[in-house]
Amino acid sequence: MKKVLITGGAGFIGSHMSRNLLEKGYEVTSLDNFYTGNKRNISDLIGNPNFTFLMHDVTIPFDGYFDEIYNLACPASSLHYQRDPIKTSKSSVLGILNVMDLATKTNAKVLHASTSEIYGDPLEHPQTERYWGNVNILGPRSCYDESKRMAETFCSDYFHHHGLDVRVIRIFNTFGPNIEKNDGRVISNFINQALSGEDITLYGDGMQTRSFQYVDDLIEGINGYMGLDQGSLNNSLKNEGWFNIPVLNLGNPSEISIKSLAEKILDLIPDSNSDIIFNGLPKDDPKKRRPDITLAQKILNWNPKISLEEGLQKTIQYFKEFN
Amino acid sequence: MKKVLITGGAGFIGSHMSRNLLEKGYEVTSLDNFYTGNKRNISDLIGNPNFTFLMHDVTIPFDGYFDEIYNLACPASSLHYQRDPIKTSKSSVLGILNVMDLATKTNAKVLHASTSEIYGDPLEHPQTERYWGNVNILGPRSCYDESKRMAETFCSDYFHHHGLDVRVIRIFNTFGPNIEKNDGRVISNFINQALSGEDITLYGDGMQTRSFQYVDDLIEGINGYMGLDQGSLNNSLKNEGWFNIPVLNLGNPSEISIKSLAEKILDLIPDSNSDIIFNGLPKDDPKKRRPDITLAQKILNWNPKISLEEGLQKTIQYFKEFN
Repeated sequence: MKKVLITGGAGFIGSHMSRNLLEKGYEVTSLDNFYTGNKRNISDLIGNPNFTFLMHDVTIPFDGYFDEIYNLACPASSLHYQRDPIKTSKSSVLGILNVMDLATKTNAKVLHASTSEIYGDPLEHPQTERYWGNVNILGPRSCYDESKRMAETFCSDYFHHHGLDVRVIRIFNTFGPNIEKNDGRVISNFINQALSGEDITLYGDGMQTRSFQYVDDLIEGINGYMGLDQGSLNNSLKNEGWFNIPVLNLGNPSEISIKSLAEKILDLIPDSNSDIIFNGLPKDDPKKRRPDITLAQKILNWNPKISLEEGLQKTIQYFKEFN
Repeated sequence: MKKVLITGGAGFIGSHMSRNLLEKGYEVTSLDNFYTGNKRNISDLIGNPNFTFLMHDVTIPFDGYFDEIYNLACPASSLHYQRDPIKTSKSSVLGILNVMDLATKTNAKVLHASTSEIYGDPLEHPQTERYWGNVNILGPRSCYDESKRMAETFCSDYFHHHGLDVRVIRIFNTFGPNIEKNDGRVISNFINQALSGEDITLYGDGMQTRSFQYVDDLIEGINGYMGLDQGSLNNSLKNEGWFNIPVLNLGNPSEISIKSLAEKILDLIPDSNSDIIFNGLPKDDPKKRRPDITLAQKILNWNPKISLEEGLQKTIQYFKEFN
């Protein structure tokens, strides 16, 4: 039976990953400090004999024997990661160093969750994995953007110089149940504003676009990626002209403006009394971001399957039951 | 008497800084692990009652009471920083965290040495402090470029969230005595090839340009910067429309092609038997980089004074005496 460690295991994506790997029969250890992760996300897993919860901060070294490590620990919404920027950067940078040290010791395979934020406010659309990004070093988002870039560099150097089997994904906007209600992300904000009858707040003119991936699609992509043996993964990447550490964009390329998203959510909650209102754009907010997922399509034969409507319905249902 | 700590104090710039601050009457503690720093650079300072040498690695916490900390520790030539990329990134990232922790505890003023490498292979010329850069996350230079970007982000967040008096400089190519003979930097390479009669190796067609600053100009810029009181520094920066942590480019804007540099060095060593030969360009080598120093000119009333010829003559003299 495969033993896996999931850092950030009580977070939004970590809790889905934990549940999914338990269903596949893995022994799952979930590490979380509940800084942004939430006990309710894993309450149904406590008591499962294959599940162990370890309350611990990823910035402090940890030990154990694992076949695979999924490094998902880091505050990921701008509201959360800007609350304590130094803590955010440390989670990312010291976290990956602790993961790499443990993986080196036990020769574990590593999945590192990076982010589309490493592209910053991109000057190329859509973004392929080859794009170097356009990131402000000194802005309010830098603690996240730069520390996630640094973590990728560490992954790359451990891959090339210690021969570790490290696989990086760059996650684009993802949503679904277990997303925090008050984390400031646009979909949870809009749904909760619509459910409570508060005004839905758009920043700027609402014409900036985003692309949203439902969490189940992401989990399927991760599973496909981690399921490939290293030799064939590297061969497939080479065939696509990618000679670097494995890095895949995972996201949904369907673009929608923030304004259309708000309207769609109001359509799905027909009894809402909310109006749409407009506010100033925050500093360094990217105007546009959309993944080019050609590489993931070719390597994993993967495509997002769940439509925005279907995902929104499931998420709205989750928040209706939330108390 | 002011007490200062210089990390990387036995390195090229650190040794000049140590000597200069001792001349100003400061008590200098020089911290170095001799990974790329060199004992001969500070051999004349040992025995000076105001000088203390601390053999220590900047990635491991250290203590002491200092009024000012000059954080100059990090392998800085591509040959050195690529030798052990993980060590390089750790020097930069864990180094700044240790400096920031100590500075927070003792309320020390910090000078952090960043680099023009944070601009990567720039798409704007010349580079002002406002330029966000064009950096490859996954290349052979990333351990340096990304970790120096990350260190600046930490500086910015300690400045904004802990109220630390942190001042960042972005050092462009600098040369002079005490530069390591075998560190792979272009000026030391060319001079030593010319002195020994080996062929002078150009990478690419030699038409890529660089700008070179003599080390005394850099030290003068640092002294001017650290000499300003925090209130007037911040006011001057605001007057220039810079509302961020203090960051100044320090470099010499005179551009020269690598080929002209080689020819100039051969002119200054007329008895050299060296020929100029051409080789392939290394990966991600920036094609062009030149500082915009308007901000430093306005804030510090500073300008590089030493011509390339004069600096080269002093450096050639240093290497002639080197054994």
